[in-house]
Amino acid sequence: MNILFAQGGGPTAVINSSLQGVVEAARESGKVDKIYAARFGAEGILKGDLIDLTDVPASTISLLANTPASAIGSCRRKLTEEDYPTVLKTLRKFDIDCFFYNGGNDSMDTCNKVNELAKAEGLDLRVIGVPKTMDNDLDITDHCPGFGSAAKYAALSASELALDASSLPIHVVVLELMGRGAGWVTAASALASRVTTCRQLTYLPEVPVDVDWMLADIEREYAKGKGLIVTVSEGICGLDGKPLADSGIVDGFGHTVPGGTAQYISNQIMEKLNLKSRAEKPGLLGRASIPYASEIDRQEAYAVGRYAMEAALKGESGYMVAIEAHRGAKYSYDLFLAPLDKVANVEKKFPVEWIVGGNQISDAFFDYALPLMMDELPKYAQLR
Amino acid sequence: MNILFAQGGGPTAVINSSLQGVVEAARESGKVDKIYAARFGAEGILKGDLIDLTDVPASTISLLANTPASAIGSCRRKLTEEDYPTVLKTLRKFDIDCFFYNGGNDSMDTCNKVNELAKAEGLDLRVIGVPKTMDNDLDITDHCPGFGSAAKYAALSASELALDASSLPIHVVVLELMGRGAGWVTAASALASRVTTCRQLTYLPEVPVDVDWMLADIEREYAKGKGLIVTVSEGICGLDGKPLADSGIVDGFGHTVPGGTAQYISNQIMEKLNLKSRAEKPGLLGRASIPYASEIDRQEAYAVGRYAMEAALKGESGYMVAIEAHRGAKYSYDLFLAPLDKVANVEKKFPVEWIVGGNQISDAFFDYALPLMMDELPKYAQLR
Repeated sequence: MNILFAQGGGPTAVINSSLQGVVEAARESGKVDKIYAARFGAEGILKGDLIDLTDVPASTISLLANTPASAIGSCRRKLTEEDYPTVLKTLRKFDIDCFFYNGGNDSMDTCNKVNELAKAEGLDLRVIGVPKTMDNDLDITDHCPGFGSAAKYAALSASELALDASSLPIHVVVLELMGRGAGWVTAASALASRVTTCRQLTYLPEVPVDVDWMLADIEREYAKGKGLIVTVSEGICGLDGKPLADSGIVDGFGHTVPGGTAQYISNQIMEKLNLKSRAEKPGLLGRASIPYASEIDRQEAYAVGRYAMEAALKGESGYMVAIEAHRGAKYSYDLFLAPLDKVANVEKKFPVEWIVGGNQISDAFFDYALPLMMDELPKYAQLR
Repeated sequence: MNILFAQGGGPTAVINSSLQGVVEAARESGKVDKIYAARFGAEGILKGDLIDLTDVPASTISLLANTPASAIGSCRRKLTEEDYPTVLKTLRKFDIDCFFYNGGNDSMDTCNKVNELAKAEGLDLRVIGVPKTMDNDLDITDHCPGFGSAAKYAALSASELALDASSLPIHVVVLELMGRGAGWVTAASALASRVTTCRQLTYLPEVPVDVDWMLADIEREYAKGKGLIVTVSEGICGLDGKPLADSGIVDGFGHTVPGGTAQYISNQIMEKLNLKSRAEKPGLLGRASIPYASEIDRQEAYAVGRYAMEAALKGESGYMVAIEAHRGAKYSYDLFLAPLDKVANVEKKFPVEWIVGGNQISDAFFDYALPLMMDELPKYAQLR
């Protein structure tokens, strides 16, 4: 049998581990003839531009574990009704038996449509979705591969910045983190006030922000003299429901791309509070960093890839691999198959009850997220 | 004998390793009674606000190796002539025999003045400067503790971002890195084009930038279709000698604080070239990140601390510890003492002959800097 693997949307720090899982499971099965990957995701499928990975050395495949971004290329093109015949043409041309699509909400929708269409056309195709999104907004699965690493990046970066801000408390430091509609990643940054003595305010896109109140909170907390870090999602909105700083750019899926939120807040702090302020925005680094990647996240990303290949070999189709988490004394997980039509286009929101007073994150979030990020909290010497 | 250790200016990822080196060498010598640290640097010295580290457990001191920012606090206050009598008062009050000042150019100037004044006043004080600056702009020493880690952060972050930019080539990614007057850290980001297939343009503050030429270069390189990353120092200036984006803020040492350079360039790319663009600015994260810290940098930072304590025990005064590097098949180094008056207020510039064609960095820089950053280059699977 021949398989095709494609990636869609923004990459994560561990996205290639899922590809590694699929390839290694395919090779071990002895049942796969050709292993193809779509060059630049949907674009490659539409052009019939596939990469033949069949004979790529095992040593190169193992490098995928420490390769961020998409090793085979991705794109933001959303497939439309008119595209699907071309997709089927490519699948037929390369005699594909199993199609794996590695992505988030939009990709699972694509996956679902390809599956339906293949059935309708009488094509013997197995379609399995492999979840991937740092945004953690896929439904049914406990969490998404890619989230743990992005959350760890946010948590440790904010903690390190908090140490800097409190050791040289000459300015209010504002840190912008990715997350347009869902605050999952930014919430993780709230670890800073748990492992340092720095004061912290955290704003997620789920709660509209009154900028005057925000500034009043900033002024009060900074005055306590222990340093202050303000961590914000790029997508936070004002009371009018509009992003605080809007770049005006719309991506290929029709989503508005926000940007400059931290700089906007920082400017307000300087102008209205007459305090020094710095805005930091690591941006895409938050999804691309290997040194900050979560080991458990990497293991899970690899495991969902293997599981997808194994499910396809058993003849399953029309499912996404999902994770069931067991948060006991030691974290563990199981994998299962969730129907694609149940996950497609559903956005799992951050529970608003985990946002305390508009700018603090409850321990319930860390009970949920910490096992996905790290085994133990960082320990710092704070001698002041 | 009693010792006092203080930190000045911006911290680095390994600044606390130097403190650890001083404390551990002091304890092992059996000759030191009281170990004091100035709380928030010069501010603590002026207020007589010292932290007594004498009985801090060894296990806490060992955490300093993985604690970014200043564990004892720092400040940007530059001591003036009127301050020096107060400094001497504190030194007398706590019966200080050895004074260590851990900092960059400005701190070495302070160190030198304290040493001169103590001599003039007949005070039996030993003064040793402990070098620290991510900017790498101290003279005489081959390089500064803190630089290797900041350079590694710039190099790996740019490489990871380059992989992201080339795997999903929908925008020009502009990365802003710290370095106001000297381009040492930003130069390290040029590793990206050496370990990925992404195109790269790098701009340092040493060469004034013609924005129209820059945009023409960006348009041409992006059109090659392999993705493009533009890495810039925060302090790059236009042909008029003014920073491209000037925040208008001046720090305690009288230096202008630039900011928003990447966002400015990104806006120009969108407006004038009609290309999508993203600006990323990790800012202070570049000096605070522990996961990206260089192991050899950490070892050297620790070693200069120990060496400073040992020099003081031998009765030396009026020197800064400096590094002599041996770049053989395997990197090694020796330490020596450099007269404070030779290093104070001298800024070591990035050699302009290492900047090729205004936007590329020569291999000569990497021959110099790579051994300070990492043992081996990162290896990525690039299957496209």
